[in-house]
Amino acid sequence: MAQKEQITFYTHFYSPYCDRVHLALEEVKADYTVYTVDVMNKPKWYTEQINPVGKIPAITYGGPKVKPEEPSPESCKLRESLVILEFLADLFPEAGLLPTDPVLRAKARLFASDVDAHVFEGFKAYFFMREPASKLLDALDRFQQQLPARGFAVGDKWTLADMAAAPFLVRTYLLLEHDLGVYPAGEGPKTLALLRGERFARLNQYLADLRAQPSFKATWDEAAQVAIWKSNPMFKRE
Amino acid sequence: MAQKEQITFYTHFYSPYCDRVHLALEEVKADYTVYTVDVMNKPKWYTEQINPVGKIPAITYGGPKVKPEEPSPESCKLRESLVILEFLADLFPEAGLLPTDPVLRAKARLFASDVDAHVFEGFKAYFFMREPASKLLDALDRFQQQLPARGFAVGDKWTLADMAAAPFLVRTYLLLEHDLGVYPAGEGPKTLALLRGERFARLNQYLADLRAQPSFKATWDEAAQVAIWKSNPMFKRE
Repeated sequence: MAQKEQITFYTHFYSPYCDRVHLALEEVKADYTVYTVDVMNKPKWYTEQINPVGKIPAITYGGPKVKPEEPSPESCKLRESLVILEFLADLFPEAGLLPTDPVLRAKARLFASDVDAHVFEGFKAYFFMREPASKLLDALDRFQQQLPARGFAVGDKWTLADMAAAPFLVRTYLLLEHDLGVYPAGEGPKTLALLRGERFARLNQYLADLRAQPSFKATWDEAAQVAIWKSNPMFKRE
Repeated sequence: MAQKEQITFYTHFYSPYCDRVHLALEEVKADYTVYTVDVMNKPKWYTEQINPVGKIPAITYGGPKVKPEEPSPESCKLRESLVILEFLADLFPEAGLLPTDPVLRAKARLFASDVDAHVFEGFKAYFFMREPASKLLDALDRFQQQLPARGFAVGDKWTLADMAAAPFLVRTYLLLEHDLGVYPAGEGPKTLALLRGERFARLNQYLADLRAQPSFKATWDEAAQVAIWKSNPMFKRE
């Protein structure tokens, strides 16, 4: 389908929520303009005209072609990563961000909703709240148990369910590898060794399948991720 | 569209989340079996076979016709009210739980997502957490400001956006009217008087429009609601 209206994507690459939208925009082969929001010092026009909640990601859709920092009142403003993913699924139905079968669509949505409820909780607990590694690992184990024996969340093709999960999973492995988090120095690689072990065989295969997706490769810049997460003041150790 | 598969709805009428699903099931004219879950003492089969998270609502879809308390492994189990609403929208597209235009669909989803993030927070804060009435009223004012000048969230016909909001709004008015909540005795009716005032003219019109929907009338039992909320031990005053 030819895209009729402009899309502007307000993002910052550190954010897993933004990453979801980036993956989906690539996957549907949208024509879009990227604008990186200064998240530490959000511009006034952003909270006033794009997202009153102030969060990223957001998109504008339609209206005249304008500079991202001078948004048109005529464009539609959308926020919340899962809402934007559904919007792209509706706008580009042939791209298969969601299957066509109602039951599979529901399963994909449930999977995405569980990522927000559980995987994110484990991620936050371990990397930011000084909770033990078991919190993270148990959350990932529960996640893994929801995966089918092979392939993606609801079939052989990845869908918005997998795009919701991928940004958290890749950041988990990256932070552990580089020993980044509020846990004691040296603990990250040890937790990573557990995560690479037999208990998580299915998760590791799933992650390899995610990393092999062209849209993943097109949007993931490992060096830039390492650099920005290393600069996070929360992760500074004495 | 003729419904091809069985639907069993696991619910308890006190729950606003269950109410959403009930409204949608009525609205799409589904053929469904209602099973009331004993929420204070959840049956083992429910958490083992229907919803491992233990929460209501849930539905089963498809599989053989069985007793609700003996669910078939062949049926699809769905949970999370908004996921079930989307499922019903997909299954009964002609019922219009969602519009067909992608932008309006996105706006409806954003509206529903904001109900969960904001209206629910105000509701919980005032009725259950001893926070001041202003918390509730400000949340409802923000909600009201998202409404168009007339009609429903995204048009003249109500959609799942409005079905997500209605159960919280009607309970708010009901609890205030009957002075139910953790606030001091006598405060409920005073807060209700504010809510019925000029500041909330748009909200009151919206609520009247919601109450006029046939599916609302078919599912809302005011006397039963009063009785069950009066019996809530959290609301007992010395």
